[in-house]
Amino acid sequence: MHQIQHTEHHFTSSELVRDIVIGMADGLTVPFALAAGLSGTVAPTTLVVTAGLAEIAAGSIAMGLGGYLAARSDAEHYVSERRREEIEIVTLPEVEREEVAHVFREYGLGEAEIEPILKAFQNNHPAWVDFMMRFELGLEEPNPRRALTSAMTIAGAYIAGGMIPLAPYMVVSEKSQGLILSIVVTLFALLVFGYVKGRYTGTQPARSAVQTTLIGGIAAAAAFLIARMF
Amino acid sequence: MHQIQHTEHHFTSSELVRDIVIGMADGLTVPFALAAGLSGTVAPTTLVVTAGLAEIAAGSIAMGLGGYLAARSDAEHYVSERRREEIEIVTLPEVEREEVAHVFREYGLGEAEIEPILKAFQNNHPAWVDFMMRFELGLEEPNPRRALTSAMTIAGAYIAGGMIPLAPYMVVSEKSQGLILSIVVTLFALLVFGYVKGRYTGTQPARSAVQTTLIGGIAAAAAFLIARMF
Repeated sequence: MHQIQHTEHHFTSSELVRDIVIGMADGLTVPFALAAGLSGTVAPTTLVVTAGLAEIAAGSIAMGLGGYLAARSDAEHYVSERRREEIEIVTLPEVEREEVAHVFREYGLGEAEIEPILKAFQNNHPAWVDFMMRFELGLEEPNPRRALTSAMTIAGAYIAGGMIPLAPYMVVSEKSQGLILSIVVTLFALLVFGYVKGRYTGTQPARSAVQTTLIGGIAAAAAFLIARMF
Repeated sequence: MHQIQHTEHHFTSSELVRDIVIGMADGLTVPFALAAGLSGTVAPTTLVVTAGLAEIAAGSIAMGLGGYLAARSDAEHYVSERRREEIEIVTLPEVEREEVAHVFREYGLGEAEIEPILKAFQNNHPAWVDFMMRFELGLEEPNPRRALTSAMTIAGAYIAGGMIPLAPYMVVSEKSQGLILSIVVTLFALLVFGYVKGRYTGTQPARSAVQTTLIGGIAAAAAFLIARMF
């Protein structure tokens, strides 16, 4: 039981990092690309900033609420699947026994090793259900408080990321200066973010920095070209 | 072996649905909200469309490339963790045996049931590594071709979703007509998308339809209000 709790703590912290990464990766990239794209049109600087802020509002709400509902539906899915396993173990014990045996046969165990496991599960239904949830269905028990945390983290990271490329347009008077400053500041922020992301997620930091910066650069270039075409 | 392949097929198809859902949920919501927001400013209709197209380009590239790199880094993470387990089973067999025993103890098995499993793994290193990957580390072997498919699916779904709220602004002459038509068409598309998404992901379809539509509506309202404030 202690180990299961320990595992969940570990999962929660890595999911927090994942949420920050999800929100900030898009926040740094899409408002940056949109502002760069619009700065290539007749739109005045104030409209570039307005569009950027509207995008940040829409993007952070869409991603945050989306994350909230995804986490809640994961939690509900887990509860309903767990209830089904609990019922099946009582009503279809032979089928469930065969499913356990099947899992172990795939890992090269013979009937002699599997039979005692089945007996132990027969006498311990909660452990049997736990086993089926994780090893047959591949489902981890979600943390019930994760839905809200996840939503706030993704939305907050999106807003924080999105303000970086937008700030330059707010402080300079010339739109072209704003674009250049935004490119410099954001590419630098993408490099730093990619590097830190790499350290946390186990990718090589230098490569992660280059990849993250490339995504932002390509997205901004595409938005710029498309906005120019129209 | 056959079952493992079967499981992977299952995973691939549900991941395809997940990729479509990820791309289309944001594609229907963010360009819709941005266009609605900008239609509340002095920006002419052409600029609303241009900003929308720039957003679709930026968003689909950011999400698609992001998905590509995430899938590739999952695959690399799996390979490197697998290599580490292979080495540890040879160099630290006692530690690895204890880790296997620990997994089973959590499920209520006693030493009498665990000992034969350890012996079987001792004689079958590939099965032992497979077991550690899935049951200790919780990692599934990723499909190597998934990275590209995932990227194209997410980006394509984002573009398809994003064109729905934008199309009305292209066909009507009055900006306010475009806004109303865009709201009607997009809320209807969100209802249908949410319903279908609910059916595929196991959430109640009607509730999923309402939730998805609410996210789009709230994001658009927030973008509209923020754009009006500036």
